[in-house]
Amino acid sequence: MTLELQPITDQGRAFVALAEEHAAEAAEQAARHDAEGSFPTEVFESMRKSKFLAAPVPVDRGGLGLESLHDICVGVGRLGRGDGSVAIAAQMHLASAFGFSLRMRQLERQNDPQRLDDVRALVDRIGSGTIVATIGSEAGHDLVHLMTELTLAGDTVTVAGRKNFGTLSPMADILLVTGRFRDSTGTWRLGVAAVPTRARGVEVKNNWDAMGMRGSGSHDIVFDNAPAIGFFPGSRWGRYSSLQSRYSIIGNGGLIAAFLGIAEAARDLAVQMVRARKKQDHRAAQERGIHRLVGEMDVELATCRALVERFGRNADALLLNPSSDGIPDEKLTELDVELQCAKLVVQRKAIGVVDSALTVSGGFGYLNRSSLSRLYRDVRAGPFMQPYSPLEAPEFIGRVALGLSPNLDD
Amino acid sequence: MTLELQPITDQGRAFVALAEEHAAEAAEQAARHDAEGSFPTEVFESMRKSKFLAAPVPVDRGGLGLESLHDICVGVGRLGRGDGSVAIAAQMHLASAFGFSLRMRQLERQNDPQRLDDVRALVDRIGSGTIVATIGSEAGHDLVHLMTELTLAGDTVTVAGRKNFGTLSPMADILLVTGRFRDSTGTWRLGVAAVPTRARGVEVKNNWDAMGMRGSGSHDIVFDNAPAIGFFPGSRWGRYSSLQSRYSIIGNGGLIAAFLGIAEAARDLAVQMVRARKKQDHRAAQERGIHRLVGEMDVELATCRALVERFGRNADALLLNPSSDGIPDEKLTELDVELQCAKLVVQRKAIGVVDSALTVSGGFGYLNRSSLSRLYRDVRAGPFMQPYSPLEAPEFIGRVALGLSPNLDD
Amino acid sequence: MTLELQPITDQGRAFVALAEEHAAEAAEQAARHDAEGSFPTEVFESMRKSKFLAAPVPVDRGGLGLESLHDICVGVGRLGRGDGSVAIAAQMHLASAFGFSLRMRQLERQNDPQRLDDVRALVDRIGSGTIVATIGSEAGHDLVHLMTELTLAGDTVTVAGRKNFGTLSPMADILLVTGRFRDSTGTWRLGVAAVPTRARGVEVKNNWDAMGMRGSGSHDIVFDNAPAIGFFPGSRWGRYSSLQSRYSIIGNGGLIAAFLGIAEAARDLAVQMVRARKKQDHRAAQERGIHRLVGEMDVELATCRALVERFGRNADALLLNPSSDGIPDEKLTELDVELQCAKLVVQRKAIGVVDSALTVSGGFGYLNRSSLSRLYRDVRAGPFMQPYSPLEAPEFIGRVALGLSPNLDD
Amino acid sequence: MTLELQPITDQGRAFVALAEEHAAEAAEQAARHDAEGSFPTEVFESMRKSKFLAAPVPVDRGGLGLESLHDICVGVGRLGRGDGSVAIAAQMHLASAFGFSLRMRQLERQNDPQRLDDVRALVDRIGSGTIVATIGSEAGHDLVHLMTELTLAGDTVTVAGRKNFGTLSPMADILLVTGRFRDSTGTWRLGVAAVPTRARGVEVKNNWDAMGMRGSGSHDIVFDNAPAIGFFPGSRWGRYSSLQSRYSIIGNGGLIAAFLGIAEAARDLAVQMVRARKKQDHRAAQERGIHRLVGEMDVELATCRALVERFGRNADALLLNPSSDGIPDEKLTELDVELQCAKLVVQRKAIGVVDSALTVSGGFGYLNRSSLSRLYRDVRAGPFMQPYSPLEAPEFIGRVALGLSPNLDD
Repeated sequence: MTLELQPITDQGRAFVALAEEHAAEAAEQAARHDAEGSFPTEVFESMRKSKFLAAPVPVDRGGLGLESLHDICVGVGRLGRGDGSVAIAAQMHLASAFGFSLRMRQLERQNDPQRLDDVRALVDRIGSGTIVATIGSEAGHDLVHLMTELTLAGDTVTVAGRKNFGTLSPMADILLVTGRFRDSTGTWRLGVAAVPTRARGVEVKNNWDAMGMRGSGSHDIVFDNAPAIGFFPGSRWGRYSSLQSRYSIIGNGGLIAAFLGIAEAARDLAVQMVRARKKQDHRAAQERGIHRLVGEMDVELATCRALVERFGRNADALLLNPSSDGIPDEKLTELDVELQCAKLVVQRKAIGVVDSALTVSGGFGYLNRSSLSRLYRDVRAGPFMQPYSPLEAPEFIGRVALGLSPNLDD
Repeated sequence: MTLELQPITDQGRAFVALAEEHAAEAAEQAARHDAEGSFPTEVFESMRKSKFLAAPVPVDRGGLGLESLHDICVGVGRLGRGDGSVAIAAQMHLASAFGFSLRMRQLERQNDPQRLDDVRALVDRIGSGTIVATIGSEAGHDLVHLMTELTLAGDTVTVAGRKNFGTLSPMADILLVTGRFRDSTGTWRLGVAAVPTRARGVEVKNNWDAMGMRGSGSHDIVFDNAPAIGFFPGSRWGRYSSLQSRYSIIGNGGLIAAFLGIAEAARDLAVQMVRARKKQDHRAAQERGIHRLVGEMDVELATCRALVERFGRNADALLLNPSSDGIPDEKLTELDVELQCAKLVVQRKAIGVVDSALTVSGGFGYLNRSSLSRLYRDVRAGPFMQPYSPLEAPEFIGRVALGLSPNLDD
Repeated sequence: MTLELQPITDQGRAFVALAEEHAAEAAEQAARHDAEGSFPTEVFESMRKSKFLAAPVPVDRGGLGLESLHDICVGVGRLGRGDGSVAIAAQMHLASAFGFSLRMRQLERQNDPQRLDDVRALVDRIGSGTIVATIGSEAGHDLVHLMTELTLAGDTVTVAGRKNFGTLSPMADILLVTGRFRDSTGTWRLGVAAVPTRARGVEVKNNWDAMGMRGSGSHDIVFDNAPAIGFFPGSRWGRYSSLQSRYSIIGNGGLIAAFLGIAEAARDLAVQMVRARKKQDHRAAQERGIHRLVGEMDVELATCRALVERFGRNADALLLNPSSDGIPDEKLTELDVELQCAKLVVQRKAIGVVDSALTVSGGFGYLNRSSLSRLYRDVRAGPFMQPYSPLEAPEFIGRVALGLSPNLDD
Repeated sequence: MTLELQPITDQGRAFVALAEEHAAEAAEQAARHDAEGSFPTEVFESMRKSKFLAAPVPVDRGGLGLESLHDICVGVGRLGRGDGSVAIAAQMHLASAFGFSLRMRQLERQNDPQRLDDVRALVDRIGSGTIVATIGSEAGHDLVHLMTELTLAGDTVTVAGRKNFGTLSPMADILLVTGRFRDSTGTWRLGVAAVPTRARGVEVKNNWDAMGMRGSGSHDIVFDNAPAIGFFPGSRWGRYSSLQSRYSIIGNGGLIAAFLGIAEAARDLAVQMVRARKKQDHRAAQERGIHRLVGEMDVELATCRALVERFGRNADALLLNPSSDGIPDEKLTELDVELQCAKLVVQRKAIGVVDSALTVSGGFGYLNRSSLSRLYRDVRAGPFMQPYSPLEAPEFIGRVALGLSPNLDD
């Protein structure tokens, strides 16, 4: 294998070491959860116990003090090598854990006690073992045009709407539901409501049945005026703002790495298969083809790793800078562009690497008894991750390059 | 859709009309057979009854007198639109039906009664409804290095060995097993033995369980000194000869078309999904991307169709020529090169088109309740078809271009 | 080489035989015209004399009676193997010769003497050796938004405007200038004016100085109220209509083939270089790579040929049908889509094949003394041919697939 | 533009600042040198004067103390934006300046005065303004099978042979000629001889005339028993050893960056063209295509930058480590693999980006008066750089992945 990604902070090294342990656990159960379509509850209990899931929370609040987004990516990538479903489900939690912890540190510096309290409450829960899941997707609506309604009345917020792709919902204690609300001026804005999974009016439909990522528990969820225990207002509905860029950066970095991890696992399987073959003289032509194809797979992986590493380093440089409290919009857009470049390339190349591993396997990988067949189904989920789809990403990147509005509808 | 492939002979038009009917039947059951991993017996009974499976046999021997390989490809492509498993299983029979009928016509012209009898007996069986399946693949051995042993003793031939990817085996009355035998000089040669599926010593393992093509019945088959009812000697073991090219041309043409058909079905599904969407103003960017991606899918399909049509026309020109009895080796190699070009491109692009259809579907196609998820799993089987794998094909083509031996081991 | 394109009519066979002779002539002078940026006048005189340029004109009017667009493509492709500049310049004439001859045959059947006279006059000129050049391009305007003004006053038409990429202008006797005019209702329409190159008010700027296609004489041309000797009104300005599709089909088919010819020449050069090398044991790895890359080049060429052949056959089936006088718009659009698919693929793959030939050459092809360096510069002109650019073609194709208007501005 | 590469050391920042100044100088003369095929002497005098060319030499020996290979790459990439010929010619010197300075620091730590003297003498020359050029290529022989003969007799070394692609030869004071010699055991080994360009027996043929990189002075050079003033023995002839990996790492890093710089320049030109266009309503479809294509160009550039940065950081981590004196062979091979991955991707994508810029230019870039036409010709030189060609690189990478010998002939 070409040089694998490595953490760059001490906390990252601890986090990645845990990730490798949990990946090994997950790998053992992956085939079963894939066959059954069941959620890998036991791995998540283990990740809760080890504090892996609390890693981004400061040490004095129960976490590991992991502040590097780069290192989050590296760790989630390791998980992806064990089981892609586990990696994306964990990332749905880790992204929020990271985002709220970062926000808390900013609000502490800004001395903004009012907004700090809600954020800190959530961070404290995560620090003490609560699992949260970001619930965004809705059929037919992209992430800035969500129709789930968050109704504010006095101190209470209630949630009504239908979500799909609710990854991690079978395990989450709290659902962080994105939707829209009318602010005091009557303008529609985006916001996030924290809703306990077991609150009245929350129905997880247990209907996830897809070609791949079968262990991710990505059920539909229906909210029927479900009461929230926290509320975090966001930017204007219908606009892709720099706040959206921020969410995208924090949410997607790890997701990309998860799919890189799947591809790395497929490549390693393919290499093992080739090494295990007995020498057969009448296979020389095929062997020559295999040398070359394995080389091409490693070129693809080296490319993916470079993009993830560069995105991670640039993200850390921007987000962890003490002056990051006031990151200019254009800097977030710029980093979002880097992210979208990495996402587009990695999601596509990860599929290509698994496909090549199938070719190297010579037909064996197509059988259900080979885990390559699972990897091939899992890895295809990558390009569906939002924002952006491959249908939109090049246009977003090009518009920014040409000095046009990053909002695709302008 | 860009201009679809059309038959060029009258018999072809009848065959393609039947293919469209059977495709419709197959489509109705495809999801069930995919879920269960069961063989679509009812469709094959229907194809037996309609004489679709006997089409290449002369009319006076019970068939439809279809002589155009081009039109075989068009018909199998139509089947592929309904169910890829049905298409490849049917092709395993049709290739032999076509090949033995062609051979019979040649031997008739050559006035070679001795060899003619065996061939005609098989053609007559097919004309009267017998289903045959070509059984070639063995784990770890390519098609010119097969290890299944055909033992000749007096008038009897017995078969011993283990085959995999035995497509159509649950339905076949006779298995046409490729293996090796020692000729009178002690040299290993390739040959084909016709073994009734229900003969003693034949065990169809009923163990086909793959990611896709789940309805193709591609079980392992074990032969334990099973007695053959027919035997057809071939060329030298271990050499890729012009006879191999001939088999490849007849066997692979329809297979390529089957995968084209799968891709066409995926494209049509994607177009239907887009047309069914309600207009939503805040999807403009995605719509632009969809227009373009659908355009790119049609470019790929137009490319695939052109390659299949050109191969089919060139094959007819070579094989149906009355002087074809003595086709020079280099002409067969030349046509084999065209086939391999078509195969390499179509098998790859078919995967790409289904992948793009998934992207157009926006996530819905990833769910098991969408037939796109089946098409995505089915279409990946294409590059495994032999000869050649994508690992070898470019080298074969390049060697011929450079005037080197087409045998990859030279 | 994989199976090359072959003419399918007797007249086509005569045309292609001439094309091969002229290609040989052109090849001898190609390096000189490339170095000097001079126009290959001598080859065009030779093509005039041999009646190659009059081929699409009926025999009784001085031509060879060539009616197959497929065979035009094959012949222009052969020219492209000798010199790409000659091929595209010849096609600028042949497209008009073909289009006006076809139009004449239609008007004859329709018994429309008024419009027939003008068309027949032009066909007769071409039959007797006149060279015409289609002059369309304008900087900053696509072919349906041309700004060159055709002013109708009584019986006279005058032309004012500036054109670029005026291929063949140094040799053409008559320029067929596309522009816009106001019809009797005041609506802007497109039209074509036939202007003698030596008329007053015509200035060929002799300023063509490009990276490649240096012998094509693609100068800027300024028209300062130049008088026309013929005028042919067309469809509405600003709309991509089925008439535009008809022009595109007739004009682009041969152009695509010209670039295929360039790629074929590069491939043959590469194969010759490899065959000429002495065996060197310490180059085994590179040789393996070369076998494979040459194979991949042949796959690309086989793909291009299949697309050109299928387009040509489909074009003949539509245009030469006796009922073609009233070809439905959607049939022309459908064929235009096939053309655009072929164009997009061939223009791109032709570049790729020449690039691969450079790789095979190991650096030698980069030197100006190798004709590969010219082919690499020439072949890049392909994607600039209109309509459509690679920026637009996928959207056009996708819109038609989705049942939307083929007009990209709708 | 997505985030550009930035130096990571103070000395690197100074070096990159100089590079940007020299790039601006070079850009002004690039079109002239391209047209004339003349060497940009004035820029090299300026780079000599500014100490840019001495940058890798320690400060106390006349240089800038630049030790980071990463930062060398960044600086050469900036030069490439100005003129690709200048960048690759400068790199032919900088690679040696860097390599000998690194070697000197190692020998100083190892306290090896005998070998140190020769190395230090060369470093001191470079520190005081001498320009050196690495002269390796020979027609028909790769870099481990060179046939140029270095004859050792007593204290003298003489050089006999013919080299091509002698980049920078018109400006170099000393040629560092790679060839083979017989060691005391009679075994052929590779070695480098330092030969003054003006020594007797050295003939620079002044015959460089290629499609691109016309200002690089890459003449043939004939050595007729030319006397050397320094000699550096290397590893065994005919073997790709870890020492070859070391040379490749040091030599190729900057070369890759040079081609990235060319692509960046092309992208910036394309973006400027688009921004300069007046708004034209009837170009909407093309504009949509342009947004997307510019986006795709930036994705490609982001990918290239990530690969160069990751290679540079990994190289620094390995080479600058104090314990680097004894870098294990497998570590050098591992880094060489990373380099080859970066090289393969960047050289190919750089060509693609310039090609896309031509498409965006809409035909203007094809004219010689646009500098895009030069960039298109220059950038194609990339894949010829050794080791490895695209014919070999995937096999090298794959062999290492599979645990086979990195020597392609094994």
